[in-house]
Amino acid sequence: MKWDDLPNEQCSMARTSVVLGDRWTLVILSDIFLGVRRFEDFQKRLGISRTTLANRLRLLEQHGVLTQRQYEERPPRFEYRLTPKGMGLYPAVVALLDWGDEHYSDAAGPPILRRHTTCGHDFAGMLHCSHCHEPVTPHDVEARKRTADNRFAEVRRGPVNRRGS
Amino acid sequence: MKWDDLPNEQCSMARTSVVLGDRWTLVILSDIFLGVRRFEDFQKRLGISRTTLANRLRLLEQHGVLTQRQYEERPPRFEYRLTPKGMGLYPAVVALLDWGDEHYSDAAGPPILRRHTTCGHDFAGMLHCSHCHEPVTPHDVEARKRTADNRFAEVRRGPVNRRGS
Repeated sequence: MKWDDLPNEQCSMARTSVVLGDRWTLVILSDIFLGVRRFEDFQKRLGISRTTLANRLRLLEQHGVLTQRQYEERPPRFEYRLTPKGMGLYPAVVALLDWGDEHYSDAAGPPILRRHTTCGHDFAGMLHCSHCHEPVTPHDVEARKRTADNRFAEVRRGPVNRRGS
Repeated sequence: MKWDDLPNEQCSMARTSVVLGDRWTLVILSDIFLGVRRFEDFQKRLGISRTTLANRLRLLEQHGVLTQRQYEERPPRFEYRLTPKGMGLYPAVVALLDWGDEHYSDAAGPPILRRHTTCGHDFAGMLHCSHCHEPVTPHDVEARKRTADNRFAEVRRGPVNRRGS
């Protein structure tokens, strides 16, 4: 089956993973959120081949996650900046980093701490509900699949409560 | 440079992306959180080759994201279940799905809605701070890198405020 033939139900993750489903892309993204902007800096930090790096950056640019901005006229030089669409990946990046911190840190702890400047404390990301603003766990989520007539009739429980498929 | 030689600073995302940095793996994960558990069901839903599917599931099992559980004795049959470590990926999965919903939905809207059963409303995931429980944006996060003596001295601003590197 071709990628495009995936059932509609999976399309949000399928399309997201076309952009992000690659080892280097995830690492490049986390570097961008640390403020890295220039090709040479990515290259030096990641030790990645120039071709691979250029391909990954081009893909992110094609998908509107990054844009190039000129920062020097002579010679003309460009840096990569997150677009608003790219900034929207921050919750995903934090969630992936937190998970990596929790499960793959060495004895000394995570390599980077993230401090919430509003309250002044290091934090881990928490998933909250956009409606009631309370925390969300997988146990209190129901997935409702869109049907052919564009209604959301079918209710399915999350990973815990649903009967075995 | 080999993957393992990445600077310590990138290790949380680098190690996470070894597990998740693959198109199929992300789609398999989002299916698991919809309650899909059995090899045949993944295979039917994703139309993926049996070999590819088996490889991805094995990787997730090796990394302790999934575990196999016998659900039938004669003949012996097994299904895949999320471990607590795997359940910890829920915030990342929701964030990636939300982003896909926002940017890649067709005109009729997202293929799946997620309802927060506690409040009864469909929701998008919000990133909140584990300390003050308030929402977090990339603009109010400072990254502090661990130094060689295991202190967190250096303060770096996020993607917006940091000077060009």
